[in-house]
Amino acid sequence: MDWIGEAIEKVRKKRPLVHNITNYVVMNTTANALLSIGASPIMAHSPEELYDIISIADAVVINIGTLDDRWIYSMEKAARLATQLEKPVVLDPVGAGATRLRTETAVKLLENRSVKVVKGNYGELFALAGEFGKTKGVDSAIKDPDMAKSISLEVARKHNVVVGMTGPIDFVTDGKELYSIASDGINLEKVVDKVTGLGCIVSAITGAFVAVEGPLRGTLAGIATFKAVAELASEEAKTPGLFHVKLYDWLYMIDGNAVKEKVIVKKLL
Amino acid sequence: MDWIGEAIEKVRKKRPLVHNITNYVVMNTTANALLSIGASPIMAHSPEELYDIISIADAVVINIGTLDDRWIYSMEKAARLATQLEKPVVLDPVGAGATRLRTETAVKLLENRSVKVVKGNYGELFALAGEFGKTKGVDSAIKDPDMAKSISLEVARKHNVVVGMTGPIDFVTDGKELYSIASDGINLEKVVDKVTGLGCIVSAITGAFVAVEGPLRGTLAGIATFKAVAELASEEAKTPGLFHVKLYDWLYMIDGNAVKEKVIVKKLL
Amino acid sequence: MDWIGEAIEKVRKKRPLVHNITNYVVMNTTANALLSIGASPIMAHSPEELYDIISIADAVVINIGTLDDRWIYSMEKAARLATQLEKPVVLDPVGAGATRLRTETAVKLLENRSVKVVKGNYGELFALAGEFGKTKGVDSAIKDPDMAKSISLEVARKHNVVVGMTGPIDFVTDGKELYSIASDGINLEKVVDKVTGLGCIVSAITGAFVAVEGPLRGTLAGIATFKAVAELASEEAKTPGLFHVKLYDWLYMIDGNAVKEKVIVKKLL
Repeated sequence: MDWIGEAIEKVRKKRPLVHNITNYVVMNTTANALLSIGASPIMAHSPEELYDIISIADAVVINIGTLDDRWIYSMEKAARLATQLEKPVVLDPVGAGATRLRTETAVKLLENRSVKVVKGNYGELFALAGEFGKTKGVDSAIKDPDMAKSISLEVARKHNVVVGMTGPIDFVTDGKELYSIASDGINLEKVVDKVTGLGCIVSAITGAFVAVEGPLRGTLAGIATFKAVAELASEEAKTPGLFHVKLYDWLYMIDGNAVKEKVIVKKLL
Repeated sequence: MDWIGEAIEKVRKKRPLVHNITNYVVMNTTANALLSIGASPIMAHSPEELYDIISIADAVVINIGTLDDRWIYSMEKAARLATQLEKPVVLDPVGAGATRLRTETAVKLLENRSVKVVKGNYGELFALAGEFGKTKGVDSAIKDPDMAKSISLEVARKHNVVVGMTGPIDFVTDGKELYSIASDGINLEKVVDKVTGLGCIVSAITGAFVAVEGPLRGTLAGIATFKAVAELASEEAKTPGLFHVKLYDWLYMIDGNAVKEKVIVKKLL
Repeated sequence: MDWIGEAIEKVRKKRPLVHNITNYVVMNTTANALLSIGASPIMAHSPEELYDIISIADAVVINIGTLDDRWIYSMEKAARLATQLEKPVVLDPVGAGATRLRTETAVKLLENRSVKVVKGNYGELFALAGEFGKTKGVDSAIKDPDMAKSISLEVARKHNVVVGMTGPIDFVTDGKELYSIASDGINLEKVVDKVTGLGCIVSAITGAFVAVEGPLRGTLAGIATFKAVAELASEEAKTPGLFHVKLYDWLYMIDGNAVKEKVIVKKLL
């Protein structure tokens, strides 16, 4: 996976403009994450300006974390415009499975062919696979590598998208190829659940990588890069306040060697 | 107050799901505070998903800091659903007294019997006591321990709720029992007013404590724990940027011994 | 510019109440920046409470960073009320030039005589000068000192406002007098583009300075103070996470001597 380092350099050089329609909780978090990795974020949701924004954007990230009827309208309009303007969409179905509104909104957005990548946790993707389960809020409790693989393949094939499924081990698949992304996670395990928006950071920076590498490689690079960043931050910070600060520092400092050292990407299929 | 340490452990073990309808300014702050203390936050405001969310929540926190007609509608619906689903509501009447809209919205929400706790500062609770005053924004200038006690008792009795009144000395009452919570505050005094959302953190984590301890003990534990956390953070950080970071670190590290060492809880009535 | 240190002390002593109608991304950022410099922030957008809020405010800051029809309605109402109540308005036309909606909204707000200051980057002010260009999101790529001077004078004269134009060198003008604000920027250059909301911090604290010094001196003091703060933070932090934290610390610690040492203000006209 030597190309991941080059992908990071591409993001820094090209500074892709990533348009985000995201949740209120992480707007600041994801804008700062995109800036730190070297991309250029824009947050905009007004239906009246979506055409102008998406025209100049290199990728669109739609995150349903604090959705309501007005924002759903904007998300759907953005997805349609992205199809028309041929811009790739990354969907983060935050909380799918926790409420019917979230599951249905995510599924409806998935029907749009501009959605090239879905990045979610186990519980969210379980819900999108047509199985129904209740996730405990946005945290997925269930962690089973084998079921995770099947679910990710199922969602990818069913919706014709690249799936990035994050958890202790991450899986990325386009329905044919399947990759796992792992780290030793010793330091990470305790602190990683104590900062909000880490999954949202992954989908935001995946938008930047998809802009320079396309859906499959972009999702692999986005998830692998963030896993390395989180590892490096957790080595320096054992508490959530400091860990949060170090995430931006490491998004800024990360390079191909650090990713190779901290993360193992395996091709399973 | 040896049980406060056990309450902290209960929060960490049970990870109560705290549903927040809160203001835009502190959504990230309060989600991170809840994660740091060991609870599980979910932010959601769409009327269409409130039933699903409150069904799985252990407590609901309503914070009116950036209210408007659509959010007031959601808050009122959430309060009704919480009554129906028997989930405790913590109300943070941010800015009550500063505008008529805030005072009236808080009073209307208080009429709902699902509201078990009101957590506010002196000025906000003064406004809810039926007296009218103008607070200087969300910062209450007036600090008078004796009047604070009377006002907290009055609000608790009038609205049949537990009142948590925060300031240099905090007061907690259910209208019969009355407690004060104090710390030496030497380091705290200068820096505590320089970070936004500290009151909102208190009401958010009080939601977590109410879920595991009920309204009176939950409010005592929430306020006492945060006071200790703020003391500990202010000992390590004399400037607002670093102090803000340290708050999450100490929410994560706090235990019963640290609370006992930093905070004095007295039963006054 | 010895008076800038005194202006900082005035802000800390008077604690002006700055009402912000701002974007979701930076609500927390700007509230914390205002608290750190010593002012008192209030975030409120509901049309129903704008009169009550603006009545007690010392300045109003309108930032169009995540605008939509409902927020535009609030911004326009706030501008009208500010005229009626004689409160100065600082406008931050975030993203003007990037979309027609933003340019038109900013121009329409500028027609209100309560707008005393427009604080934007090169691209945004270029758009307001009646020239049309597309900015790359909210980051202006184009950096030309001479054109910057002309544009700032043109906007100031056309709209009868004070213009604060920020970039590698900042310019402040009321259409007659023209000032440049510069620093050596050696440390700053790399990290300053990696944190979101720095321009929004400038317009927020400019609101506080305008409340105590009036439009021209307030804008000079706000921009010069932040430039010194950013320099000092960048000397201590070479990475964006830590740099962001240090900004609040230095907003809290900044004084007149530090501004004089770090920043050169020149009167050009």
